[in-house]
Amino acid sequence: MRNTWEFFSSENIVFGNGAIQKLDKVLSRFGAKNVLLVTDQGIKSAGILEKVTDELEKYGYHYLVYDKAVPEPPIKSAMECLAYAQSEMQTDVIIGLGGGSSIDLAKVVGLLLEYGGEPRDYFGGENLVPGPVKPMIAIPTTAGTGSEVTSVTVLTDTENQMKVGISDNFLRPSVALLDPELTVGLPPYVTACSGIDALSHAIEAYTAKDYKYIEAEGNLLFQGSNPISDVYALKAIQLIADNLIVAVHQGSNVEARENMLLASLFAGMAFSNAGTAAAHALAYPIGGVTKSPHGEVTGLLLPYVMKHNATVAPEKMAEIAKAFHYDLSGLNNHEAAELGYEAVLNLLGQINLPQTLSEIGVQEEQIPEIASKALQIDRLIRNNPRVPSQNSFEALLETAFA
Amino acid sequence: MRNTWEFFSSENIVFGNGAIQKLDKVLSRFGAKNVLLVTDQGIKSAGILEKVTDELEKYGYHYLVYDKAVPEPPIKSAMECLAYAQSEMQTDVIIGLGGGSSIDLAKVVGLLLEYGGEPRDYFGGENLVPGPVKPMIAIPTTAGTGSEVTSVTVLTDTENQMKVGISDNFLRPSVALLDPELTVGLPPYVTACSGIDALSHAIEAYTAKDYKYIEAEGNLLFQGSNPISDVYALKAIQLIADNLIVAVHQGSNVEARENMLLASLFAGMAFSNAGTAAAHALAYPIGGVTKSPHGEVTGLLLPYVMKHNATVAPEKMAEIAKAFHYDLSGLNNHEAAELGYEAVLNLLGQINLPQTLSEIGVQEEQIPEIASKALQIDRLIRNNPRVPSQNSFEALLETAFA
Ligand SMILES: [Fe+2]
Ligand SMILES: [Fe+2]
Repeated sequence: MRNTWEFFSSENIVFGNGAIQKLDKVLSRFGAKNVLLVTDQGIKSAGILEKVTDELEKYGYHYLVYDKAVPEPPIKSAMECLAYAQSEMQTDVIIGLGGGSSIDLAKVVGLLLEYGGEPRDYFGGENLVPGPVKPMIAIPTTAGTGSEVTSVTVLTDTENQMKVGISDNFLRPSVALLDPELTVGLPPYVTACSGIDALSHAIEAYTAKDYKYIEAEGNLLFQGSNPISDVYALKAIQLIADNLIVAVHQGSNVEARENMLLASLFAGMAFSNAGTAAAHALAYPIGGVTKSPHGEVTGLLLPYVMKHNATVAPEKMAEIAKAFHYDLSGLNNHEAAELGYEAVLNLLGQINLPQTLSEIGVQEEQIPEIASKALQIDRLIRNNPRVPSQNSFEALLETAFA
Repeated sequence: MRNTWEFFSSENIVFGNGAIQKLDKVLSRFGAKNVLLVTDQGIKSAGILEKVTDELEKYGYHYLVYDKAVPEPPIKSAMECLAYAQSEMQTDVIIGLGGGSSIDLAKVVGLLLEYGGEPRDYFGGENLVPGPVKPMIAIPTTAGTGSEVTSVTVLTDTENQMKVGISDNFLRPSVALLDPELTVGLPPYVTACSGIDALSHAIEAYTAKDYKYIEAEGNLLFQGSNPISDVYALKAIQLIADNLIVAVHQGSNVEARENMLLASLFAGMAFSNAGTAAAHALAYPIGGVTKSPHGEVTGLLLPYVMKHNATVAPEKMAEIAKAFHYDLSGLNNHEAAELGYEAVLNLLGQINLPQTLSEIGVQEEQIPEIASKALQIDRLIRNNPRVPSQNSFEALLETAFA
């Protein structure tokens, strides 16, 4: 049994409509003069980049823009951004502006600027990041990944055709600056996929095995649920239950956008400490056989994973049903727990996301391999409240299939 | 109306029985070799200091102990500690070990070690702390002040016979290391005073005016209630409602101690961002006319302040009553809000703390001056959900008198 838990967080959260105007204040706290801004083409063409550079110009910062971030950025993109920054200035602070990818890329570049080398030097192992990296301000433009407060970055190793991650608490951005107005223009499908990903983070963190019972030695990045992650995760679930449908169907509803951005922030704080579990583990191999975005896959899996786990975490599943405003009176915890599954499955329908694996192009014969690959992702599997097996995962996937 | 809010927090919370054994791991994150440990005589004689120095020795740290912290440390104590550290080594990290005073002293010394000068240079004004101070690990031994995660330090200016504060988000300890076992030996009265202070922080933060409606310009340290402070504050109230009485009457109940330490941490995170309000404002002048500890005074005032504020914040007051397990069915919010007052007044009785100002030596004729002095503390008064007046404060104090 483990006796202690840890919680890491960004030092400073700035939140609100127009929060972008606080950028100068935030930069001054770091005594910054030279700013590297990492973003992508979509952000540029949506006019969001300009909002940020306007602030930088107004206050006389020297800045460079790297606007070529792509989803799951390839290693060479990190090296290119690094070389560009190094050739032009001494970077004081990095801004990651965009969805998860720009922020992930900024994390890697901040690491390389501080300690040199190349991304490969930091893959996989523990404690490879020697200390604090370049101070970073993350400005998310979607409400989903929570990357603005997480310690993880995902890159693509194009040579070896695989996704690789660097995970270290030193990678967590110092400041998360969240301006809901930046998310108002997101189309319904992107809003749905991002929002359901945030729900997956929140529910997987909330129902993760208690930190006491995680079977592993040493310092864990993903430690299982603890009293702080629980508080954030449950609040995130409540906010998503009350706001995702409106955010998808009424994109300009700023209050719904605000609450979704807050929810994805809270979910990020929760899961980057507690960890995610079976839905994310299963999403990895499924990601290899479908083109669906990450959120669509984790969201689709989520209700089936909840059903799979319900008997082991009935109180928490019942709390989730309560967050979705189910009337639990007269039900025991096991009956109430079933309603959590129902609530999330129903939500998928309400926001027009697929509810079965066949819809996203998974073949039934791929199920055994998906199950066995997912079981190998120990850092997620050990967080799952119910110990999964090849059989239990195959049964889960069969239920999810059609 | 203000559109944005900010939340600052310590980067790393380490929590659990035996958490002290994580000290080496925490220090290594800073690459620390030379450690300055600030504590007091009580901690030394209770054998707690030794637990910490044992860890430092086990892992071969070079350390200095300054064990002369006293409540609301005089300026010369800070200068003495500073001179001692500077004469002996290059400090990498400071540990503040003890109640609020040791931690407060460590904060000031961390500031002076980094930027020189003397405490007076940093009193009062805004933005006087130029940047990050020496990394600090706070190890609280009481469950009350929340100082392990706050940005405030209080000293005594003995020349001018007054309490002075330095407040800046750079003063927030980097790491809060909380080991409930260190609090098991606290006597019932200290447990009660500390615990009710934590409740005052939580309730004042929770019911503080919403950040949107705080009437002040510029960057505020105390910004009014916001979505993160609310989450922490309410959870702290729930934990205290369920655990303070047991912690006072069964000091060796480790679970109650754990929950109280968690509650005071959460309350600290909440109030150091949202701020406290009328109970703390009134406690300042009352502190000048009685020898009662801070917690006894704020705790005594708390129910009367809640009654004073109930009509302006009825939903939140009702939530507080709910946290104390009152059955609110059939009541409207205003009726429910009254029960919050009743719950806290009743709690004072259960933990043997005074419920009237006359019991702690306040004279009835001092009431007008107490009211008028409290009204001058703008940074707290502007947070109070109901705008207080000389009349309303005098009426509040009369009700609290006997
Ligand atoms: Fe995800
Ligand atoms: Fe207090």
